[in-house]
Amino acid sequence: MGGTTRRIITLLTDFGLSDPFVGIMKGVILGINPHVALVDLCHSGKAYDPAEAAWLLITSYRYFPDGTIHIAVVDPGVGGPRRPILVTRDDHLFIGPDNGLLAPLAAKAGSTVRTITATRYFLQPVSATFHGRDIFAPVAGHLSLGAEPDEYGEPIDDYVRLALPRPTQSGISSIRGEILHIDRFGNLVTNIARVDLECLTTEGSPAAYVVSAAGLEIPVVAYYGQVAPAALGAVIGSAGYLEIFVNQGDASRLLGIGRGSEVVAGRKDAETARL
Amino acid sequence: MGGTTRRIITLLTDFGLSDPFVGIMKGVILGINPHVALVDLCHSGKAYDPAEAAWLLITSYRYFPDGTIHIAVVDPGVGGPRRPILVTRDDHLFIGPDNGLLAPLAAKAGSTVRTITATRYFLQPVSATFHGRDIFAPVAGHLSLGAEPDEYGEPIDDYVRLALPRPTQSGISSIRGEILHIDRFGNLVTNIARVDLECLTTEGSPAAYVVSAAGLEIPVVAYYGQVAPAALGAVIGSAGYLEIFVNQGDASRLLGIGRGSEVVAGRKDAETARL
Amino acid sequence: MGGTTRRIITLLTDFGLSDPFVGIMKGVILGINPHVALVDLCHSGKAYDPAEAAWLLITSYRYFPDGTIHIAVVDPGVGGPRRPILVTRDDHLFIGPDNGLLAPLAAKAGSTVRTITATRYFLQPVSATFHGRDIFAPVAGHLSLGAEPDEYGEPIDDYVRLALPRPTQSGISSIRGEILHIDRFGNLVTNIARVDLECLTTEGSPAAYVVSAAGLEIPVVAYYGQVAPAALGAVIGSAGYLEIFVNQGDASRLLGIGRGSEVVAGRKDAETARL
Repeated sequence: MGGTTRRIITLLTDFGLSDPFVGIMKGVILGINPHVALVDLCHSGKAYDPAEAAWLLITSYRYFPDGTIHIAVVDPGVGGPRRPILVTRDDHLFIGPDNGLLAPLAAKAGSTVRTITATRYFLQPVSATFHGRDIFAPVAGHLSLGAEPDEYGEPIDDYVRLALPRPTQSGISSIRGEILHIDRFGNLVTNIARVDLECLTTEGSPAAYVVSAAGLEIPVVAYYGQVAPAALGAVIGSAGYLEIFVNQGDASRLLGIGRGSEVVAGRKDAETARL
Repeated sequence: MGGTTRRIITLLTDFGLSDPFVGIMKGVILGINPHVALVDLCHSGKAYDPAEAAWLLITSYRYFPDGTIHIAVVDPGVGGPRRPILVTRDDHLFIGPDNGLLAPLAAKAGSTVRTITATRYFLQPVSATFHGRDIFAPVAGHLSLGAEPDEYGEPIDDYVRLALPRPTQSGISSIRGEILHIDRFGNLVTNIARVDLECLTTEGSPAAYVVSAAGLEIPVVAYYGQVAPAALGAVIGSAGYLEIFVNQGDASRLLGIGRGSEVVAGRKDAETARL
Repeated sequence: MGGTTRRIITLLTDFGLSDPFVGIMKGVILGINPHVALVDLCHSGKAYDPAEAAWLLITSYRYFPDGTIHIAVVDPGVGGPRRPILVTRDDHLFIGPDNGLLAPLAAKAGSTVRTITATRYFLQPVSATFHGRDIFAPVAGHLSLGAEPDEYGEPIDDYVRLALPRPTQSGISSIRGEILHIDRFGNLVTNIARVDLECLTTEGSPAAYVVSAAGLEIPVVAYYGQVAPAALGAVIGSAGYLEIFVNQGDASRLLGIGRGSEVVAGRKDAETARL
């Protein structure tokens, strides 16, 4: 995968962009491979949530071409005993701390997880607070030059598990999920996937469903503009998950609910509103 | 324009940078053309204002070299009947929704507007909520490889118009404008251009003018430091428009006015303060 | 340094990313050298502090490869008499306003400071409010093509000095420093360097030290996770300076102190807590 093709390295961190942390990581990478394409996936303003970062990564990586290297650093345990790991899934490579952040990616058959032990690729001395700079960035830089994953460490099976919450059956015609992510528009993205809804009825139309959240019954529509401005709706969002929105407004603020709050989706003809 | 020259694609959105939306668009583009240079123009934290985004784009694009492709996505109508369009102006290409955002660019003679109908370039299936990823990014990627605009769709003339507000004559020696944009320093950028002021008097000095806003008379100066720290002034800003500032402070917060608020500029010797 | 190697240009500004200022600078640079790698070092949301920006730059630049060009624009005096300058240090080049921002870099033996007088490289006309676009970006672009610094102006010695505050001896076994920077996690980064601590005792262990700030005695540890979640600690941070943190929390908010606040570090066995 090295050689003539231009490799891509993405960065997902909770470092924000007002400190030089992300820029420094890019400097380290470009010092190793000046021809790589660097892409900021996102740099959250909210710290310390590996589960949300895992969800953002697993719903985003597939839009990058094969061979892309993804660095993910949400790492409150930096400097302690947690290991750096390298996950391969499909033809993508993922680098980050062994704290659950990369675990959902490893769940797919054919994926491998390695502990990164090849300290010869690390920046020396390795600091106790910034492994993004000292371990993850230089390892990614060297990987982008064409090195094989097995040069970085042995496969392991005892990596830290983190299961993204799955919806549960809540009745014969409804399922109970939760809010996984609030996006910058205030849309409430749930863990209820399109396929989960399709198990409830064979009718494909959004109008066949209804959603309950914060004590309200919310219509499911095909796109934002199908409800009036400032009105509530739910839609299958771009990552394939049901999300609650306010047309040209902020659903998170209007409903006063957030990450972890319960959402029930059901068949409209089954009067799920009583749930 | 393809081939040996490195093409540039800029991105202007209201997606912010804490979600992976912009990063995903870049992944789609680099999967099509890994050698393109990607530049974030801006990603506003305030959603849903095509008019302000149009102003930011029209005052920025000319600083990029000919052949640059600009993607602009401020798109509350995503998924509905609004069309994707491709505008050519000078030697620049602009891609975005047909909601007025690109209309001021099309006003220049020689510009063309096309509806993008070449679905073979789209990511399939096209989602109802993220055309930045499914339509605008892949179209830009393919354009950067050298495809001609007429491969993407037919010229149209019924695109959605959006006229940026123009100042009006308010007296024999003054004009009435409004605030178009508040920048990150709290500077209040108006729609009164340098040339509008020059119509009021042949004297070129800033000191020949005075500005009224929020009930205050504000001196026009050549640069920020010509008023004392924490004092109010007005200056011709970098985009060529009159802007009200507080030296090392925040004019928006001090005056308590914002987008759409009225500003009057006039000749100082005509006592415009009484306006 | 030009020719076949891909040059890097970094940008540090207080422009934020919701305005197109940084994007426009990149457009100007890519119009001159489309093959350069552009890296955002940081774009602070807090305006007008050349001293903090100087500290961020001097602790970051060394992670970029030799030949990197760094643009730094924190520039409340833009448009006034302050000069644009070009600093060379090690094999790095720095471009910015002569307001102290680049002065700490020039303190190293072998560094040179030049006033940039080669107006032929400037965008014309030069605005009074945006020298990032009109002077610093095009000068960096041309430098990245291989031009020598002496083509841009004469060496000067009367540049504006700005000394980063240094800690002072506060007792036979303690030193008094101050907070230089609050990072996005709320960590309070001080000006007390690892080497300053090492002068207090020959024992290398963090446990040999204690820190006093905001009336509290704070343990020094090797990494964040050595104190309980929500507990206070101090650690040698990634730039080599002592920083006060709350494990998975925000020290700035908890202690209610900030930039300029006093911090005392001492040998634990000398009962520095009484300081």
